[in-house]
Amino acid sequence: MIDARLNEYTPRDPNPNVPFSPEEIARDAALCREAGAAIVHYHARDPETGAPSSDAALYADAARRIRAACDAIVMPTLGANTVTDLDARIGHIEAMAKDEATRADLVPLDLASLSLAIWQPGQPAVAGDDLVYHNSVGTLKTLAARTRAAGAAPMAAIWNVGSLRLLEAFVETGVLPRRMLVELFTTEGGLIAGHPGTIAGLQALVDFVPARADCLWAAACYGANALPLVEHAIARGGHVAIGLGDYAYPELAGGRPTNADVVAAVVALARRHGREVATPDEARAMLGLGD
Amino acid sequence: MIDARLNEYTPRDPNPNVPFSPEEIARDAALCREAGAAIVHYHARDPETGAPSSDAALYADAARRIRAACDAIVMPTLGANTVTDLDARIGHIEAMAKDEATRADLVPLDLASLSLAIWQPGQPAVAGDDLVYHNSVGTLKTLAARTRAAGAAPMAAIWNVGSLRLLEAFVETGVLPRRMLVELFTTEGGLIAGHPGTIAGLQALVDFVPARADCLWAAACYGANALPLVEHAIARGGHVAIGLGDYAYPELAGGRPTNADVVAAVVALARRHGREVATPDEARAMLGLGD
Repeated sequence: MIDARLNEYTPRDPNPNVPFSPEEIARDAALCREAGAAIVHYHARDPETGAPSSDAALYADAARRIRAACDAIVMPTLGANTVTDLDARIGHIEAMAKDEATRADLVPLDLASLSLAIWQPGQPAVAGDDLVYHNSVGTLKTLAARTRAAGAAPMAAIWNVGSLRLLEAFVETGVLPRRMLVELFTTEGGLIAGHPGTIAGLQALVDFVPARADCLWAAACYGANALPLVEHAIARGGHVAIGLGDYAYPELAGGRPTNADVVAAVVALARRHGREVATPDEARAMLGLGD
Repeated sequence: MIDARLNEYTPRDPNPNVPFSPEEIARDAALCREAGAAIVHYHARDPETGAPSSDAALYADAARRIRAACDAIVMPTLGANTVTDLDARIGHIEAMAKDEATRADLVPLDLASLSLAIWQPGQPAVAGDDLVYHNSVGTLKTLAARTRAAGAAPMAAIWNVGSLRLLEAFVETGVLPRRMLVELFTTEGGLIAGHPGTIAGLQALVDFVPARADCLWAAACYGANALPLVEHAIARGGHVAIGLGDYAYPELAGGRPTNADVVAAVVALARRHGREVATPDEARAMLGLGD
């Protein structure tokens, strides 16, 4: 099962293939679906400048166009880490739910509060002095309830071992469903809040995926080439979340791949390991969407 | 090297041997030192009720009495996780520094912001809805600078792999010294914000202790019997942070051990593994205190 992470808040430098507008997002989504993705994840962006946008109309327009173009599972994001007002974080998901054609299928919840420290070897100072990503237990309970009330299924975004313990607690107490997609994020490119984007960093999350939940876990890496982790995940029965939103992938397609090129690289790895990729309908069945 | 974690905010039920008053803390510290501890860590508590206290006079009185009673390294705590005002968090350390007899030797810094989720299997809901422990990068830089200005050395308290990456970044950028005590906390007894208090949970921290820093790492477990982790740490060259502040240790001394009994159990484990315990002076040399 492949989740194509289309754009995040990533600029077009160095890779101009990051989609911004609803039209671009939908076109990209359809190409990713064709290449093998079951899920598409996107952020609303200003169509001209690419600036982050919280415009519910942009979110809805993208969802409507994706559905017109292909059958991929639609996962818009929640409000950014700098947004603490709950209505601002999830209001667009609720607005989208008013029309079945724009309703979100999946919504990502980051199961952690974090100091978003930024540093790379050689830099003279750690940046991110004031960046604390707030996801209190109470906030997460509310976001999970409002996600489900909006007819969407939560996806658990995991940053550390504490995230996985909270996942288990939320599953056992009914805040989150037992069967769900769990994306294990590693962070590179300066963001040091998560595990390193190494096999060891990923495995130190996989080892703590709660056995009593019915998780379908996926490997992800923000800020670096995720393909080594992807191969590790594929070989161990895991799934994959990847795309130009996380990293420009100069290693692929002559240096400027599209999201579909990145998905195709994952599909090639999967086939080499004897695994077929799930269609959106197969992924819906695996995730119990629409049950 | 053993750090005796004397009291935290732990009540006297079930174990009445938790020290509250400066006199009790100092008496306990001396007995722990005699049993084999090199460092004593304490929180100021109301001498009668045991309620958490931020009274600088209580902190200073305890330090003065500890120094009169023994040569242990003195590590008072910073302000609690519920305190966000920087002066309230570190003001008592600065007040203590005005007199060499009450100056702190070590000060613990928690290198993470966290949602302090509380849950145990069988409980119907996750508690801690509003408990977010704020330690932004900027806050930690300030606390580290003020700790060092107060003539004390920082101790890094680690909650997850992101904490260890931040430790490396702070060491490489001079916010923290290269040689330091690093306590690897696991959390049990309902607190699920850290790694589980299992060998696997501890090892998943040890594996990410930054190689380029000159860390002396110690195993710790809040909320459960740390001795299995302690033995794992001792066998791997690690150090130990343990005491009634973390757990009542009904397994020891007929069910109601003192802190010195807990330290003695660690010393016995160390000897079984052929390791001698460090005296305070040996620990000072290892940590570069007073250099």
